[in-house]
This record gives sequence, structure tokens and C-alpha cells, in this order.
Amino acid sequence: MADTNCDLKSLSPLQLFERVTEQGEKVRALKAGKAPKDEIDAAVRMLLSLKLSYKTTTGQDYQAGLPPRDLVLINNGTTKEEDEDFVDPWTVQTSNAKGVDYDKLIVRFGSSKIDTDLINRIERATGQKPHRFLRRGIFFSHRDMDQILDAYENKKSFYLYTGRGPSSQAMHVGHLIPFIFTKWLQEVFDVPLVIQLTDDEKYLWKDLTTEKAYEYSRENAKDIIACGFDVNKTFIFSDLDYLGTSTGFYRNIVKVQKHVTFNQVKGIFGFTDSDCIGKISFPAIQAAPSFSSSFPQIFNGKENIQCLIPCAIDQDPYFRMTRDVAPRIGQPKPALLHSVFFPALQGAQTKMSASDPNSSIFLTDTPKQIKTKINKHAFSGGRDTIEEHRKYGGNCDVDVSFMYLTFFLEDDDRLEQLKQAYTSGELLTGELKKVLIETLQPLIAAHQERRKQVTDEIVKQFMTPRKLAFEF
Amino acid sequence: MADTNCDLKSLSPLQLFERVTEQGEKVRALKAGKAPKDEIDAAVRMLLSLKLSYKTTTGQDYQAGLPPRDLVLINNGTTKEEDEDFVDPWTVQTSNAKGVDYDKLIVRFGSSKIDTDLINRIERATGQKPHRFLRRGIFFSHRDMDQILDAYENKKSFYLYTGRGPSSQAMHVGHLIPFIFTKWLQEVFDVPLVIQLTDDEKYLWKDLTTEKAYEYSRENAKDIIACGFDVNKTFIFSDLDYLGTSTGFYRNIVKVQKHVTFNQVKGIFGFTDSDCIGKISFPAIQAAPSFSSSFPQIFNGKENIQCLIPCAIDQDPYFRMTRDVAPRIGQPKPALLHSVFFPALQGAQTKMSASDPNSSIFLTDTPKQIKTKINKHAFSGGRDTIEEHRKYGGNCDVDVSFMYLTFFLEDDDRLEQLKQAYTSGELLTGELKKVLIETLQPLIAAHQERRKQVTDEIVKQFMTPRKLAFEF
Repeated sequence: MADTNCDLKSLSPLQLFERVTEQGEKVRALKAGKAPKDEIDAAVRMLLSLKLSYKTTTGQDYQAGLPPRDLVLINNGTTKEEDEDFVDPWTVQTSNAKGVDYDKLIVRFGSSKIDTDLINRIERATGQKPHRFLRRGIFFSHRDMDQILDAYENKKSFYLYTGRGPSSQAMHVGHLIPFIFTKWLQEVFDVPLVIQLTDDEKYLWKDLTTEKAYEYSRENAKDIIACGFDVNKTFIFSDLDYLGTSTGFYRNIVKVQKHVTFNQVKGIFGFTDSDCIGKISFPAIQAAPSFSSSFPQIFNGKENIQCLIPCAIDQDPYFRMTRDVAPRIGQPKPALLHSVFFPALQGAQTKMSASDPNSSIFLTDTPKQIKTKINKHAFSGGRDTIEEHRKYGGNCDVDVSFMYLTFFLEDDDRLEQLKQAYTSGELLTGELKKVLIETLQPLIAAHQERRKQVTDEIVKQFMTPRKLAFEF
Repeated sequence: MADTNCDLKSLSPLQLFERVTEQGEKVRALKAGKAPKDEIDAAVRMLLSLKLSYKTTTGQDYQAGLPPRDLVLINNGTTKEEDEDFVDPWTVQTSNAKGVDYDKLIVRFGSSKIDTDLINRIERATGQKPHRFLRRGIFFSHRDMDQILDAYENKKSFYLYTGRGPSSQAMHVGHLIPFIFTKWLQEVFDVPLVIQLTDDEKYLWKDLTTEKAYEYSRENAKDIIACGFDVNKTFIFSDLDYLGTSTGFYRNIVKVQKHVTFNQVKGIFGFTDSDCIGKISFPAIQAAPSFSSSFPQIFNGKENIQCLIPCAIDQDPYFRMTRDVAPRIGQPKPALLHSVFFPALQGAQTKMSASDPNSSIFLTDTPKQIKTKINKHAFSGGRDTIEEHRKYGGNCDVDVSFMYLTFFLEDDDRLEQLKQAYTSGELLTGELKKVLIETLQPLIAAHQERRKQVTDEIVKQFMTPRKLAFEF
């Protein structure tokens, strides 16, 4: 394992940081041990070369004990602090009413844009019209989706993996986005799907008992099942349960845990020395379902089935880590499809959060509650007076009702008409909100109707480890 | 949860360290947030008080980012560096040919000496002559053994937990010490026993595949079973297997992981930021079998059965951590019985280690190999010439053959005779070695004979989660 420059180029900033640190320790040890001058000189040269690579890669000087903060202060083009976007798996914050600058996020994360070519290719491969989330840039970024399609076109299948942290019984409409899209992917590609409910994560992060976290995961499973997944093709699992049911899963977890250092998770997730060891090791548990050997019952023990993960972009840090580890444990890197965040009612500066009821439309809300919340809280891109609005028109880029319609209104022409009419001032804020209310009310009512049909017995079926209706 | 002095006194150095750190952060936040002066002053007073408690407890000034190194440089009474004993779960090193100073270890670890009173009490409770390991101070230290006996005398039972890290197929005689003693405890108290094989630990620490680590755990199980454990009362488990078989076990692991910070494991085990997250979270996996709810099949789901852990004293850091966490997750603290280390053939400065074949007598050694190793390598407390030896006598305190006889020769009178004869110079080194050889050869031959009887089927019986022959 020689240190060639070729090796160094393929290293992440964090890996480089570790290499510099190790090499520094080596130099100190050689000097302390009064090693031959030649040997010390060679080690020092390597140290300097590593430090140079570090600086080239990160744009920063190496500082001992200070790993590069991998994530994600995205500067919106100015240098003022208040203009920075902050994105990690727990917080999304921007000062921009249009929301996070996703093009910058792609650059910073090193992912790829989902462009028209890719969307056309998905259409050709599946023979289906692309989902509105693709047509409208709601799933906007990817990693290796082209490889998934290469393999698919050669009759090589894959599986889907997505998940949810069940922090409360109440799910909101934003939580549905990855599931609506995953269901579409499952249908058009006809592939198996695993859905992880990270009740252990919620136990570790929140003031919850394991019993309560597990109860939430079963309640949330009902909402997920109500999205219409096929029980013959879908396995939903709670970590607290499945980790104690599958030796394949734990083996993959411990393999990931062996290949990720505290320095790395500190850089990626911002953990500190005061964090509990459960949080520090948790990323391996979200990583492991990316490997088909975590599900021996589904894949007949086959180990190298490709995985595709649809998720919101804030989950990407987990999977960058996973992709970094995968080749080192002999597994294929999972591919990813990233969505934007679902904006809070108050505006796209932050995402919808179940812990702030005023920011959220819950799946349990009545038609009246939906109407009241939208009318009262949905941030408007309209003008202050009807006269001004008629004259200057509204701003769809910051109008939350219009944003929600891009998520939920299927008809492209209708959406375009609404945009034109609102921008021109022909359509008033109240009228636009009415369209949203009339779109959401039946959707949520239908969801509630389907959820009522989801009995404990059905949940049990989905959550039982078993063979799915595929041959691998 | 007021901060009273009473609270502070009960905190460990590490807990105090965390409290000082948190309070410092609080003060900074208050100042940054321009909080009222009263509030800042109160927070600063609390900070100073915490720092004072820290200094009183540790004898050191608080330094941000530098948690107290909990373990264990035991100074042998001089100030010279080379006279320090070093003990942690991976390394035992002393400059003293008599071995580690165990009385100092008791003081540093805060455990209790197993004195004559306690040994007599065990004899009364069980109606059995105390095991030679108790009579001879080989199990020399304990935590809460008196509480185990209080409860036992009131017909309240307990269970035993011990373990082994299966780092190779080859076990040496030193590895048998905890198992020989545990078997005796199980017989005289008639209690269930769980034995953990930490193949996940060995995978994390060594250059091993999970498959190889699991294979070692099954091979080691054969040697353990050959010690004569009763299959109806004993459950042996590999972590790699059992973690994926028992939801009770994982729930306890994640509970421990929530209540231990990186600062704490850094202080207790000396982990660094470059260590993998698997090592960092592993201590919770060794902790969890201390709680009966990790074995619902054995205890019918009963959660508060008291646990007693016989182990070598280097494992104590794991269980100090466990005892610290137990009340915070509503579980009883495990009690402990600590043994000394089994010395290397070359002398008691370090313990016997399977990775140094010359330091070890393996359970697979032939009679000839045993003879050769003892004659060639066993450090002698005898004199340089026969004449000097006859005149001044040998030194049993540093003689490895004599030490081994204290472990394996059952007859107290014979052992005392040998000691007298060797000390007086009447018995020569070669003659003492001959006694050891003739003691060990039949013991190891008998072990090999019993091991041959241990079929894969028997291993499977021991390693299958099931009800044991006890009611709880």
C-alpha cells in the first residue's frame, strides 16, 4: 500500500486529514526514537506532500486536531454571514425566501444535477411519463443514477432503500414526498423496496423511551403503508426490532463502524466529545441497509445487489460516508436521488417541521384545519393591497401556496396557468390559496381513508422479514 | 434537578469534567446572548464551584478539552517512571517481577479487597470449602459481593456473566482462570450463567474478517465447554450472532450508548479521535449482558435479576462504566469478582499473551511442548549456581513456576511444603519446574480429552437462545 500521488487524489478531505495526522505522529515517533536521518527525512517529505494535498483539496491549511468541517455553509454569493445556507441532517436554514440555493448545494456536495437528458433516459428506460417531482426539479440531484440505468437496460435489477425517523405519531405532508416518489419508482422499475424506521436514532436524540420510539415507528408505518406500497415487494423495519432479528444487518453495521473514525463523523455530522457514543456510531446503522447482505431473507443472501436511495438532500451526508466505506468492505456504492426540502408554511427559509405545529399541515388535519392553516400561515408572494397586486403581480418564487402546488398538483398546464395568472396579478393570493386548499383537502382525506384500512395485521405483514416477490 | 453539593460529591471525575464543560458553554452562551447580569453571575459562580469540585476530586486543574485520564498509572511508591504499573483492557505492564501491585490497584479502582471475612461468608452461604483461587488471593478484589450474599441468604438468586474475546483459535492456560472459577461459582451457588464471546470486538481491533472472528468464537466455545459447564444452566453467545437474534440485547446496548459520552470512553479506555466509531461504541456491547433483560428467553423477560461478573481486573473499566450507567437506565448495578493476571512464562511483569507463543502454554500443547516451554522459558526465582541456591534459597515471589502452582495445585499443604523447600534452598529450580510440569501435563491432557467430546452439535446446544433450568 504505497503512498502514491494517485492514491492521494482519490481521498476525501477527511481522509487526507487523517493521513496528515498519522504521518505527523509517525515523524514524531521517528524523531523520539532517534531513527536514522534518512528515514526521518523521507517521513518529513511525505508529511509536507500530504499537507500540500490537503491544502489543494480543502483550500485550508492543515491544523492539528481540527478536521475539515465537511458540511455545509453554502454562501449565497455575498460574504455577509446572514446570507449563508445551513444544511445538515437536523437543521435547514437559509435567509433566502426562495429557499436553499440548490445549485450551490450540488457543487458543495459533489453530486450531479438531474438534467433533461437524465429525465428523458428514465422515461425511455421505464416507458413511463416522468413523475412530476422529476419534471419540476423537486428531485433535482443524484449520484450514479446513470449507472443504475446502464445496468437496468442490461436487465440487471436493483433495490430501493428509503426511511424515516419516527419522532412523533404526527407525520406532515412534507414527510410524504420521499414515499410518494419511491412508490412511483417501485412501480415503474418494478423493484423491491426496504424502508428503515430509525426508532433507535430517535431514542438517542430525543427525550423518548425505547418503547415510545418503537410505538411511533409502528404508527408511522401505517402512514407509509397508506401511500399504497405493495406488501409483496416492500419490507418496512424498525431498527430496534430488525437489528435484533437479522445477523446480516449487524454484521454490515460493525463493518461500517470499523471503517469510519470519530474524526470523520465529527467532520461530517458535527458531533463533539460531549455527544453520546450512540449518536457517534449511529451513522453506520443508517448506512447498512445500503448493502443487500443486510437483508438475506429478501435477496437469498446475495451480496452485491445495487441499491438506489431516494431521500431529501439533508440525508446525503450519511450516504457520502456510506459510499466512501462501500468499496473498502467489498460492497457496491449506493446510488442516490436527492429531493429539495418541503418548505414550512411560513416560508422556504426553513423546512416543514412536525415540532412546530404552525409550520405544518399534518396528515391527521381536518379539511377545516387545512383551510385555516393555509389561510392564516402560508407565506404569500402577493402584494400588500389588491390594487398593487393587480398592478405588479405576485411572486411565485417565494409564495408557499404556489410551492406546495408544484409538489401536489399533477396537471402541468393548470400549474403553468396559475403561475401566469398569479405573476400577472390576475389571480389574488386568496384565490391561489383556495386552489391549494381544494388540492390538499381531498388528497389528505383520501390518505386518511386508506390509513384507516391499515390494520395491525397489515403492519405486521409489512414488518415481517421475508422473501419478496423477486428472484435475484 | 438542582445542582446541590450533595450531587457533586457522588460524581466521578469524568462526570465532573462534563459538568464543568457544559457549565462553561452555558456561561459563554449567556454572555453571547447578553443575558441579565444576575443570571450570568449565578452561572459563573456555579462554574467556579464545579471547577473547585473537579480539583478536589482529581487533584488537577480543569483543562478544557482534556478529560481526566481515568486509568491507571499505578505508581509503585517511587517517582521513577519505570516503576509505574500500566493496566487497561489491552495492556498489562509493570517493572516489578512480583507483578502488578494489586493493593494499589484496589485503591485506584475504588473496589474492595476480598478479605477473610468475605471468604468465610461465602463458605457459610454455600456450605462449600472456598475455591483455591479465593484461598490464595487469585480472586482478590470485588464490588458489592456482600450485597450478592445478603440477597442470596434471603433466597434471592442472581446470574453469572463472564466472557472472552476470541482473538485466535489457540487459548492458553491463563484464559481458563475465569472459567474454572465461574464453573465453581455456578456449582456452589446453583445459578444460571451467560458467557459472551466478543467476536465483534476482535473484528474491530484485529486484522480479521467477521467470518474468521465468528469461527474463532465457535472454536473457543469448545474449550470453554470443555471446562465442564452444564448445558442446562449455561448460555454461550457470539455477539455477531446473538445481537442479531435478540431484541432485548440491542435495546440495552442502545440504552447504554445513550448514557455514555465520547469524553467518558476517552477517559476510561484512552480512545482517540482517530479510533473507529465501532471501538468507541463497543463498551456498551460488553456492558449490556450485565442486565437480565438482555436475555428474555432465560429470565422470562424479568428485568431486575442481579448479575455477578467474575473477570480479570483489567476488564473492570467496562464494568465501572456499566455500574455508572445502570441506575440511570433503571437497572441494578452488576457485582464483580476480580482476579489477578496470569503471568507470562518470562515473568510477572506482563500477562500471558496468546500472540507471544513463547510466553504461553497453550491448551493444545503436547506433554513434550509443555515440558520444553517450562524448562526453557519459565522465569526462575532460583540462584545462579546450585551452591548459592542451597545456601540462600530461591525467591517464590518472582518464580513463575511457583506462581503457576498457586493457580493449579489444589493441595494447600503440598504448596506450602514446596514454598518452604524452595525458599530454604532445599528444592532446586529444576525440581520445582518438574512439579509444575507433572501438574500441568495431566490437567491439559484431560482438557484435550474433554474437548474432543465437544461436538458441533453440543456447541450448537450451548449457543442456542433458550430457557435455562431455573425459575425467576
